[in-house]
Amino acid sequence: MENRIYNFNAGPAALPLSVLEEIRDSFLNYSGSGMSVTEISHRSKWFDDIINDAKERIERLLKLDEKFHVLFIQGGASMQFCMIPMNFLSKENVADYVNTGTWSTKAIKEAVILDKKVNIVASSEDRNFTYIPRDIQFSSDSAYVHITSNNTIKGTQWASFPDTGSVPLIADMSSDIMSRSLDMSKFDLIYAGAQKNIGPAGVCMVIIHDDMLELVQENLPSMLDYTTYSSKNSMYNTPPCFAVYTIQLVIKWLEEEVGGLKKMEVINRKKAELLYGVIDSSAFYKGTAEIDSRSLMNVTFRLPNEELEKIFVQEAFENGMGGLKGHRSVGGCRASIYNATTIKAVEALTDFMKTFEKQKG
Amino acid sequence: MENRIYNFNAGPAALPLSVLEEIRDSFLNYSGSGMSVTEISHRSKWFDDIINDAKERIERLLKLDEKFHVLFIQGGASMQFCMIPMNFLSKENVADYVNTGTWSTKAIKEAVILDKKVNIVASSEDRNFTYIPRDIQFSSDSAYVHITSNNTIKGTQWASFPDTGSVPLIADMSSDIMSRSLDMSKFDLIYAGAQKNIGPAGVCMVIIHDDMLELVQENLPSMLDYTTYSSKNSMYNTPPCFAVYTIQLVIKWLEEEVGGLKKMEVINRKKAELLYGVIDSSAFYKGTAEIDSRSLMNVTFRLPNEELEKIFVQEAFENGMGGLKGHRSVGGCRASIYNATTIKAVEALTDFMKTFEKQKG
Repeated sequence: MENRIYNFNAGPAALPLSVLEEIRDSFLNYSGSGMSVTEISHRSKWFDDIINDAKERIERLLKLDEKFHVLFIQGGASMQFCMIPMNFLSKENVADYVNTGTWSTKAIKEAVILDKKVNIVASSEDRNFTYIPRDIQFSSDSAYVHITSNNTIKGTQWASFPDTGSVPLIADMSSDIMSRSLDMSKFDLIYAGAQKNIGPAGVCMVIIHDDMLELVQENLPSMLDYTTYSSKNSMYNTPPCFAVYTIQLVIKWLEEEVGGLKKMEVINRKKAELLYGVIDSSAFYKGTAEIDSRSLMNVTFRLPNEELEKIFVQEAFENGMGGLKGHRSVGGCRASIYNATTIKAVEALTDFMKTFEKQKG
Repeated sequence: MENRIYNFNAGPAALPLSVLEEIRDSFLNYSGSGMSVTEISHRSKWFDDIINDAKERIERLLKLDEKFHVLFIQGGASMQFCMIPMNFLSKENVADYVNTGTWSTKAIKEAVILDKKVNIVASSEDRNFTYIPRDIQFSSDSAYVHITSNNTIKGTQWASFPDTGSVPLIADMSSDIMSRSLDMSKFDLIYAGAQKNIGPAGVCMVIIHDDMLELVQENLPSMLDYTTYSSKNSMYNTPPCFAVYTIQLVIKWLEEEVGGLKKMEVINRKKAELLYGVIDSSAFYKGTAEIDSRSLMNVTFRLPNEELEKIFVQEAFENGMGGLKGHRSVGGCRASIYNATTIKAVEALTDFMKTFEKQKG
């Protein structure tokens, strides 16, 4: 045995064991090429097959028609924060942003740096971002609406998505992409840093509709222009090959081993229920997100005091469970239970939580 | 045995076998963490040690003083093509560019897209980029001079670097970084996509002097601003962890197994001499770069006709040597012999070249 821990990291995060084993086993000789996957040319048949298979599987899982384009871009979601306003906002038009926490705030900040006009159409800052705003009045003439589908740090998630009428809806789905069924007809652009649900750090998946590509502004640097990626199959320059390869394997695992998004969602709901169940049946643990806004991916909770939280994280680690410390900006505890985190891992954690409460509560 | 080929790819390219083996052997459990290196947090002690060790080794190998900062940025050299003019050119000032081929041309193109003022101070386009210009007259008042130290596609390389006086010298060293001794006091910024000499695709190393950080323009998007990376140890957002980790191991190999840049240069010169020796002693093979501008990294040559070139590439492949086809924009043949390509690999190729000439010449 490899003596692996249960990994509750917020990202980079757990990857499916079978994916890691496949990478390891073929690492010195990829698919009979006589080279590592890190040594093959991105212009080779081998890499073409990797990127095209990844795209086709993503298209199948999300039921994308040919008007959607799956792109792989470097720089993480943070690069998208500036690319989106650069590509879709002129000097004249305005974008609506919903502010649900740290990452939304950063997305807004980058649009403002670029001197673009931003309208904060709703915010949950009044209650420390512990909920998802409802009944939002969107402008009918904005260039797009931007939301963050899951808030990794605050542990909130949009349970359903707003109707923005004819205004394009853009979503940062970094921390819940591919974790549940998704009706892509509601969206015009979604993006996700890979390092939570679909792969390692170093690549951001962008799914963009033809209609958005039509709206791209003129005179953008090639690497910051979505049409560069859509017209060159994400290979205008050398792509982050290893990260794309890992995405391919994770998506293959999701399609073939898990059996698709509906089945993944069932498993993810079960994991979340196990954890929230322990929290709700206890006066020792206290969830930080409002109940109807809770995330299925990042379960944030507090213990009676910070000293106990520190001991909790430390003892969990000693018991083979890592990554339970809350984000440095908010403190407390957080269990990130992305796709690759198993029910067995969550059960180990809930057992530990119950024991810890008995001992220290 | 893993049945590996001799890899002459132009990039992504060969990596040291011992590095690949180390990655493979620890892939399910990195350094006792119980996680894959692709699963650890970039905010963990494990990753801090990786990125800091990589930086310290690079500082030692290049004898950098504390005024230089080693950064890791996504988007490859192509992203640097736009970041450099964005960061260092205002509406008023001008930059000098030397055009020595495809990559220089692309660097110039991105500055022009941004509506910056560019002065092409020298070019070798008149003879199809087969040489490095000499005796260049640089402007004394330009914001910087930009050169491409090695031209992967045309097979040329600056044997020594120009004196630009008080004007900062910037060099794209993607295809010869760490391949030879380098006097960094001549440079104010160098950058290199990792996928040739120092790692896999997905990260660009940038080494920047304090003086350049002082010149960065206002109001740049965070991800396109060099000071974001210098102030946050390249971890403003999640870095491309696996690529940085591989760089760490390659640089460790270079420092500990090879023994530093001087020793690496001796080996690289020997490999180049072996190949150019066969070319120069034959009427069958013809080098495409002018002799005094030849690259030690990318050996470009032609055979008597395209049909023979096709057979050469095919038969070499059947004999366990891959990646010998010239770049699609120029045709012909190219052997890329970066740091990780062994003398044994080059000897296998020169043997094959001699045999092929006997049979077909």
